[in-house]
Amino acid sequence: MAFSAELETLEAFILRLAEAAAGVALPLFRSVELGEVSKPGHSSGFDPVTEADKGAERAIRALIEAEYPDHGIIGEEYGTVRAEANYVWVLDPIDGTRAFISGLPLWTTLIGLRHKGRPIMGVIAQPFLKEIFLGSPLGSRLITPSGSTPLRVRDCASLSQAVLATTDPHLYSNDEEPAFTALRKAAKLMRYGCDAYAFAMVAQGTMDGALETGLKAWDIDAIIPVIENAGGVVTDWAGTPVGPYGGQVMAAGSRAVLEAAIGHLSPASKPAEAH
Amino acid sequence: MAFSAELETLEAFILRLAEAAAGVALPLFRSVELGEVSKPGHSSGFDPVTEADKGAERAIRALIEAEYPDHGIIGEEYGTVRAEANYVWVLDPIDGTRAFISGLPLWTTLIGLRHKGRPIMGVIAQPFLKEIFLGSPLGSRLITPSGSTPLRVRDCASLSQAVLATTDPHLYSNDEEPAFTALRKAAKLMRYGCDAYAFAMVAQGTMDGALETGLKAWDIDAIIPVIENAGGVVTDWAGTPVGPYGGQVMAAGSRAVLEAAIGHLSPASKPAEAH
Repeated sequence: MAFSAELETLEAFILRLAEAAAGVALPLFRSVELGEVSKPGHSSGFDPVTEADKGAERAIRALIEAEYPDHGIIGEEYGTVRAEANYVWVLDPIDGTRAFISGLPLWTTLIGLRHKGRPIMGVIAQPFLKEIFLGSPLGSRLITPSGSTPLRVRDCASLSQAVLATTDPHLYSNDEEPAFTALRKAAKLMRYGCDAYAFAMVAQGTMDGALETGLKAWDIDAIIPVIENAGGVVTDWAGTPVGPYGGQVMAAGSRAVLEAAIGHLSPASKPAEAH
Repeated sequence: MAFSAELETLEAFILRLAEAAAGVALPLFRSVELGEVSKPGHSSGFDPVTEADKGAERAIRALIEAEYPDHGIIGEEYGTVRAEANYVWVLDPIDGTRAFISGLPLWTTLIGLRHKGRPIMGVIAQPFLKEIFLGSPLGSRLITPSGSTPLRVRDCASLSQAVLATTDPHLYSNDEEPAFTALRKAAKLMRYGCDAYAFAMVAQGTMDGALETGLKAWDIDAIIPVIENAGGVVTDWAGTPVGPYGGQVMAAGSRAVLEAAIGHLSPASKPAEAH
């Protein structure tokens, strides 16, 4: 089938993109330069995180421009080109910059692909762990040097049994805080500090849900195909599909957890802002 | 020098202990059994985290009993023997059980060694990452399959530039919460969800401090030699040495960060409870 062959070609390409980004970002992770930033008298102006972020996005964009010059690109660092193309790449070269600067191997490179406006393929890549979580209509799987393993969410029966995650409990606005706190208390466990890596854990079936607010397109687009093709669900806080600008997001491995979570979050639901 | 030779022997032994624990815990991490626990109708009674915790401690204790039957042991899972011995091992087979059940590779095995009551050697081991952070009077270093690298804290000049970490902002009691919040707001960044791994990041010089409350001896004993022999400092919230029962702990890479943090924390300081 033609579309399936095209997906296979695009999958091979998205893995090349992840590899190119890793080649730039990984040498800067836990680098000497990273340690220098908080030292007295630091004034070189060299910021290894910014360097990793910008350098990785340049590496990805160069490959796209060379191989698919008619595809569009939306990137965190270098903006948008050809937004109206059939295929549009959506890039966050370093998601979790605070993990990156802390030396924690939970930052990721997010590369998403939209087809006619819909996220159809994505990778969540953690090069220090040599893990690439890939999702597409051909299936979601974890790719490591030892091979490829299918990703499958787990079927958690209720919120009270659910392990959830969010990046930081203090990122919620005053309007959102009561909804978040109600959800935190209703869940079995709320983990912090994982950024996009938490969504990979939902796809893998070791967590039951993850939520964020204030996301941009590049924070979430890559994640949606990974979760959905592993059997999970991703919506905004109203329980409707995530729009083109991100905003408030809730992902879950099971409908039961999603619906119970949306019950707590929907009073604080608001539309995402364009960017 | 005789004591140095003895330390080398003990270092080789502590690495064997870490390896034995990894042999039990790692196969259960992200295992099918782990996924089963939150599924509807789960009733096998098999809890992979408990199994990893208990099994890893049994493996460690068996080696100690075989090689050093006169040494004491204080373990989270199987209690205390020969507490009055010159050498006493202090064991937390799985620190960060919530990370373990979430599939996050930031749980660790903590193995500490006291000599005449003082923590002199410790490892913070993360087998999924193949990382062992080892500290002793012979120096602190990170041991991985590619070799051994010295660990060195970084010299952060002030709290406002400091990256700190704690496991969960909601673990602080009402008495402690204002002190924690003041510290969080004074720091450049507060990370969550790392358990003992955050202290390894301080020793490595990619974070500037870490704090916890309600620790037991086995949560902190192994950490102290790793931080101190990397040039860092570990105290209780009054700024005095951590006692034999853990309690409230603050670690930092620099005196400047430690002292500024203790300024915020000391009003909520209280003695650790015996266990």
